[in-house]
Amino acid sequence: MSSHRAAPTLVDVPRGLAGVVVTDTRIGDVRGAEGFYHYRQYSAVELARTRRFEDVWHLLVHGELPDAGRSAAFAAETAALRVLPDEVRAALPAIAAASRRSGPLAGMRTALSLLGAANGFRPVYDIDADRRRQDTLVACAAVPTLLTSLHRLAKGLEPVEPREDLSCAANYLYMLTGSEPDERRARAIEQYLISTIDHGFNASTFTARVVASTGADVAACLVGAVGALSGPLHGGAPSRALDTLDAIGTPERIDPWIRARVLAGERIMGFGHAVYRTEDPRSRMLREIAEQFGGPRVAFAVEVERRVEAILAELKPGRELHTNVEFYAGVVMELCGLPRDMFTPTFAAGRVVGWSANILEQAEDSKIIRPVARYVGPEAPVPVPQAA
Amino acid sequence: MSSHRAAPTLVDVPRGLAGVVVTDTRIGDVRGAEGFYHYRQYSAVELARTRRFEDVWHLLVHGELPDAGRSAAFAAETAALRVLPDEVRAALPAIAAASRRSGPLAGMRTALSLLGAANGFRPVYDIDADRRRQDTLVACAAVPTLLTSLHRLAKGLEPVEPREDLSCAANYLYMLTGSEPDERRARAIEQYLISTIDHGFNASTFTARVVASTGADVAACLVGAVGALSGPLHGGAPSRALDTLDAIGTPERIDPWIRARVLAGERIMGFGHAVYRTEDPRSRMLREIAEQFGGPRVAFAVEVERRVEAILAELKPGRELHTNVEFYAGVVMELCGLPRDMFTPTFAAGRVVGWSANILEQAEDSKIIRPVARYVGPEAPVPVPQAA
Repeated sequence: MSSHRAAPTLVDVPRGLAGVVVTDTRIGDVRGAEGFYHYRQYSAVELARTRRFEDVWHLLVHGELPDAGRSAAFAAETAALRVLPDEVRAALPAIAAASRRSGPLAGMRTALSLLGAANGFRPVYDIDADRRRQDTLVACAAVPTLLTSLHRLAKGLEPVEPREDLSCAANYLYMLTGSEPDERRARAIEQYLISTIDHGFNASTFTARVVASTGADVAACLVGAVGALSGPLHGGAPSRALDTLDAIGTPERIDPWIRARVLAGERIMGFGHAVYRTEDPRSRMLREIAEQFGGPRVAFAVEVERRVEAILAELKPGRELHTNVEFYAGVVMELCGLPRDMFTPTFAAGRVVGWSANILEQAEDSKIIRPVARYVGPEAPVPVPQAA
Repeated sequence: MSSHRAAPTLVDVPRGLAGVVVTDTRIGDVRGAEGFYHYRQYSAVELARTRRFEDVWHLLVHGELPDAGRSAAFAAETAALRVLPDEVRAALPAIAAASRRSGPLAGMRTALSLLGAANGFRPVYDIDADRRRQDTLVACAAVPTLLTSLHRLAKGLEPVEPREDLSCAANYLYMLTGSEPDERRARAIEQYLISTIDHGFNASTFTARVVASTGADVAACLVGAVGALSGPLHGGAPSRALDTLDAIGTPERIDPWIRARVLAGERIMGFGHAVYRTEDPRSRMLREIAEQFGGPRVAFAVEVERRVEAILAELKPGRELHTNVEFYAGVVMELCGLPRDMFTPTFAAGRVVGWSANILEQAEDSKIIRPVARYVGPEAPVPVPQAA
């Protein structure tokens, strides 16, 4: 029988809960002043440089890197989950058709919601930790299949069935295009996906945890997170940075274009980050990957970056502003043949693993996340006027 | 160009953000010590007693009760939005089939996500206040159609098309059963729906506002809220209270059944509330509505309530414990012919209006809700072990 909870004392905090510690976590952190972020006790960039996506996925949801045997077993286990349940596959053409006017994230939001229902996901508080983890694996393994299927259906193409013999990243590109990618492209996307798994306590991660704190099922939590990710303030829209490159167009236009923007006080997409004081460590890694591909597009991007920094140093001295993850993520995804409307969905395909780890961690807590609002309207009650 | 945000000072607060003021609101409040809650400046119970659902809906999303002319116009405007877009209607059989193993809220979550996409909902920060409000009307008007259609499809029945000439509540019962309800039942459900629109800053309302604070579209916010509502800790499951009545069974079993539970320290579903010290004002109103119907079921429920309070006064003196909204909500919904698996969805059909008002209010703010987590795991970086 529930006891009466004492009315809580109101606690005033900074707007938007900035800096408010909502939970402890063992998943990872961002150290902005150092230009460093980590998953568990490992540098995220080092993980992206040296390990496969599935190993890092295992690290996030099991808490440790797998040894060789577990690595192979986990890769096989998750590869087997790429195939969609028949009822979901049957619904995708209707979802793709109805989602034509919205972004691809809206289609994914719907499809992921359906996937959870079709798999009979149950409230996280009603199931044990193994079953919860299993539900997250089912969801994460299916996301690339959902995304690529919806993308192809929207283009009037048949979905490509997943292959179990490919890595997660290679299979993603394969399902998108219908042909097996070369190793360099598969590895570039794999490194990108690893680098996006988690990044501090962003708004979508927080949303996933708020929903999880009610005890809702894994799909309910992930669908909430996808919704938050689709908000323009969340960030994570690498196509915008490419739009900047296109808008500039040619090397000789770089300086006048950038100067005009900086002098007008306008934002340059792909530059600036809320947390990093230094270069974004993801940006540095992705630039190196891009430079391994080479070519005029990469050279142009590097030149734009160089000129933006130089012009800022001149016009706004002391203002440290570097490329953020969007800038070279867009370049790398373009090099790998991803269409722009799949950039943010691809970001989500990595981030869903981070959301999952956060859901699993939150489910170990039994306390609902439920702040309060302060009523500031006219004093109640005023008598209700009679209906005319 | 984004400036570097200073790293926020960490602010420690009570667990689960209890008592933490996340926003100001003009939508309403709960005054637990007084047993009172209100929408805008009006008593919610008085609104439920005296006004139609559409008028209260108008109050929530427009900020004021409509005069006679606007009342009729708003009712007509929203009634016209009950019909689903063809692409959504076409997808419902597949959604119903895939959601068979989950609760009806999971089906609603999927269908509402699809509805937003089919209507081309755009990020709330990219559209003006009128368009945002319009999107909420589209969603709220469609929820009863989605719920009843999915329910009938799951039962192997054809959905019943909405009628514009009925009130929102009467049309809801009509779409559910295929026959027009009598006035008493329609009015009882209408009063229930009004009473559930809003109730302080609950977890689903908070979720809707977190997603809205990223600027995501109205469907993304509502789908997040539906997810939170589906969590067992959120509450709002009126069928559980009826399960208690069924478990007791007959009047002579009331006392031994209750005593055993109280002595074992077990929770009795339908009793106790986190906020109210006094009787839940919703409970009082719903009991009166039930008593107007009368009959043995209502008499039994009233007797159970009376005995629970008496036994608690004897065994746990000083412990104020009354029926909560679930108890008589279940009784009233049963009297109106709603099947139990539609109780929580019906709750959602009212609450979606409150979520909408909160989304609209949040969208006027431009600050993302983004707290932080404190990393407490092993210190990073530890060198990444080589893959075996």
